[in-house]
Amino acid sequence: MFGFSFRQRKPNSAQTAKERLQILLAHERTSNSGPDFLPLLQRDILEVVRRHMDVDGDAVDIKLERSDDLSSLEINIEMPGSGKTALKRLG
Amino acid sequence: MFGFSFRQRKPNSAQTAKERLQILLAHERTSNSGPDFLPLLQRDILEVVRRHMDVDGDAVDIKLERSDDLSSLEINIEMPGSGKTALKRLG
Repeated sequence: MFGFSFRQRKPNSAQTAKERLQILLAHERTSNSGPDFLPLLQRDILEVVRRHMDVDGDAVDIKLERSDDLSSLEINIEMPGSGKTALKRLG
Repeated sequence: MFGFSFRQRKPNSAQTAKERLQILLAHERTSNSGPDFLPLLQRDILEVVRRHMDVDGDAVDIKLERSDDLSSLEINIEMPGSGKTALKRLG
């Protein structure tokens, strides 16, 4: 639709198998719209992710880009352990 | 890095100018990892977005895809009005 496109990666080889989470946000605005709220969403979304996963602060990589009519935010998170250890209890 | 790639769209023409938000999540898992938590994140993230924006239920389009080692979630939100009317008070 807009902003991003899906691109499936090649499967991991065994020795690099890790848990990763990537979150991309694209906010398409009209030129006269209000303030950019992606930085606020960034904070809230990271809080939500931490509810479900153990996330090391160093393992979060964030990129924010802005132009007149499009703001985009990319959050890449690498989990400290692989598999079940990285997931908190669900529910 | 993985999962998605950025793709900037052409600017809107005036008559189609609208506020839009796209959120993409890609969760790359090892094959022996625990349950898929993207459906839970979906609920929480939509809640977070609604804190900042007026979102009409009909204006939310969600796609969830799963394979053995990658789950992806695409949320497309179209704001009911353009510009400031769609944004709630920030702060």
